[in-house]
Amino acid sequence: MKDIAGLDIPTYDDVVAAHERIRPYIHNTPVLTSTTFDEMSGASLFFKCENFQKAGAFKVRGACNAVFGLSDEQAARGVATHSSGNHALSLSYAAGRRGIPCHVVMPGTAPEAKKAAVRGYGGQITECEASTTSREAVFAEVQEATGADFVHPYNDPRVIAGQGTCSRELMEQVEGLDAVIAPIGGGGMVSGTCLTLSEIAPHVEIYAAEPEQADDAFRSFRAGHIIADDAPQTVADGLKVPLKERTWHFVSSYVTDILTASEDEIVDAMKLTWARMKIVMEPSCAVPLAVILKNPDVFRGKRVGVIVTGGNVDLDKLPWMKS
Amino acid sequence: MKDIAGLDIPTYDDVVAAHERIRPYIHNTPVLTSTTFDEMSGASLFFKCENFQKAGAFKVRGACNAVFGLSDEQAARGVATHSSGNHALSLSYAAGRRGIPCHVVMPGTAPEAKKAAVRGYGGQITECEASTTSREAVFAEVQEATGADFVHPYNDPRVIAGQGTCSRELMEQVEGLDAVIAPIGGGGMVSGTCLTLSEIAPHVEIYAAEPEQADDAFRSFRAGHIIADDAPQTVADGLKVPLKERTWHFVSSYVTDILTASEDEIVDAMKLTWARMKIVMEPSCAVPLAVILKNPDVFRGKRVGVIVTGGNVDLDKLPWMKS
Repeated sequence: MKDIAGLDIPTYDDVVAAHERIRPYIHNTPVLTSTTFDEMSGASLFFKCENFQKAGAFKVRGACNAVFGLSDEQAARGVATHSSGNHALSLSYAAGRRGIPCHVVMPGTAPEAKKAAVRGYGGQITECEASTTSREAVFAEVQEATGADFVHPYNDPRVIAGQGTCSRELMEQVEGLDAVIAPIGGGGMVSGTCLTLSEIAPHVEIYAAEPEQADDAFRSFRAGHIIADDAPQTVADGLKVPLKERTWHFVSSYVTDILTASEDEIVDAMKLTWARMKIVMEPSCAVPLAVILKNPDVFRGKRVGVIVTGGNVDLDKLPWMKS
Repeated sequence: MKDIAGLDIPTYDDVVAAHERIRPYIHNTPVLTSTTFDEMSGASLFFKCENFQKAGAFKVRGACNAVFGLSDEQAARGVATHSSGNHALSLSYAAGRRGIPCHVVMPGTAPEAKKAAVRGYGGQITECEASTTSREAVFAEVQEATGADFVHPYNDPRVIAGQGTCSRELMEQVEGLDAVIAPIGGGGMVSGTCLTLSEIAPHVEIYAAEPEQADDAFRSFRAGHIIADDAPQTVADGLKVPLKERTWHFVSSYVTDILTASEDEIVDAMKLTWARMKIVMEPSCAVPLAVILKNPDVFRGKRVGVIVTGGNVDLDKLPWMKS
């Protein structure tokens, strides 16, 4: 950990320590390739399948690092968070593995499948409105009442260090990558990617992919400061949250570019992945592929790592089905 | 190849030769595990993911073995088949890789996604009715007109030897298996499994899983002779076809038991696999898991290889969605 302008910013040593700490509780997820998508993109794509991760998403990396780094005294009071879904699942999973309570504030509008899964892992849910402001207000009440340790979904150095273990694995699994691309919401995965690659592979380009309808990171990147939207609407429901100061540090320092895709492009890429790669991925994970297919000049001829961030989907409400 | 009662029956040498022949054109597919399903079943399950196979199903193994074993003279006249879908895709893929024509007779009721994929691989489709009798009649006309080599979806020694390469890989990937289970329609995959395991691992039990609503193999197994149904109805549309003499040879000689599952049990197992394993599998592939969950006494405590036969699904018509 180092201090940058008053912020506790994780270092690569924290990633290495996180990897040792969380290894018993996570999968080293497989990397899949697709002849179809290589032909469509003109690039060589390596899909790091965090949809196969424990609790169904990469977020279990950061959550486990936070939970298993707590002192016994801290741990006894449990952990708490607010989340649009996957961080809630992951923190509940991690807390369950340690045998401590997990309090979760999440929007009443979150997919039923995610709420049921949180409860399945033993998480206790308090519902809030879908806006960021409501979520933060309700959360303050819950934390006050329980004394639980707050594990922010992304603006937490323990979480960012944990997410950094994903690209550490990817670099061991695939040789000669030219670029890595991940979806960006709050920026936890992108920050972890920046943290790891800036240390062990600084020549690798880092792209972030974002929905046009929740393009606050795209606009922040161009403006040079954080721009936050309250409650944007997109099918990629994991990507609605804004950057915070710690993720902004990494995004502004190390990201090559942020590219965006429309709702239709995201849904098309999601359905295409299910149809051709035979894997279940969330809408959020389809944004990188949508962006790659939309910007062939950026990626053609490159070896590109694509972080498939999660696979927690409400199978009764697929975005290409007319309701 | 050996002669048994006038039938050309493949031997394990044919499996080894097939494996060498087809290796450039197929994937050695990964084996996935699932903590959830291990806990639900009390067994250790190893899913051989042929849904990630070229052309989306195991059938490409037998199809490639047939196509690449042809003489140049035979190959010039092309290949032809009738199929409920995946064999058609696979033969089209194999013929395309060799650069020869592929003629396909398939039911007009087959999923649009499968027809489009056959055409995408260059296959030429002639449609028939959904019954076995109609399919065979229309096929005779096509073969007469083209002179193409007939590659039956399963009652062909080249195809059975090709399918036998799947469990050959599985035995290299997983140690100490007690049993292998695969869905059964015409019996091609089950026969290939019998062929390989009876030679290299004769202690391993072989189970076949079949829909209750298309349980002709189950009834044949108990009756001691082939019973064929014409046009049974089941969501597992790859499993509607009856056993033929070559697959009956293997099924009657080597299968431990055939177990069945209802339509609801199949759909539940399919949806559960998508939700928990994050893989896209066909209804047919869900029959083994449905059978395992239904018969815990048979599988508890065993290490069981589960052949996930294919992932070609019409994503616009999922069986748990009300239309």
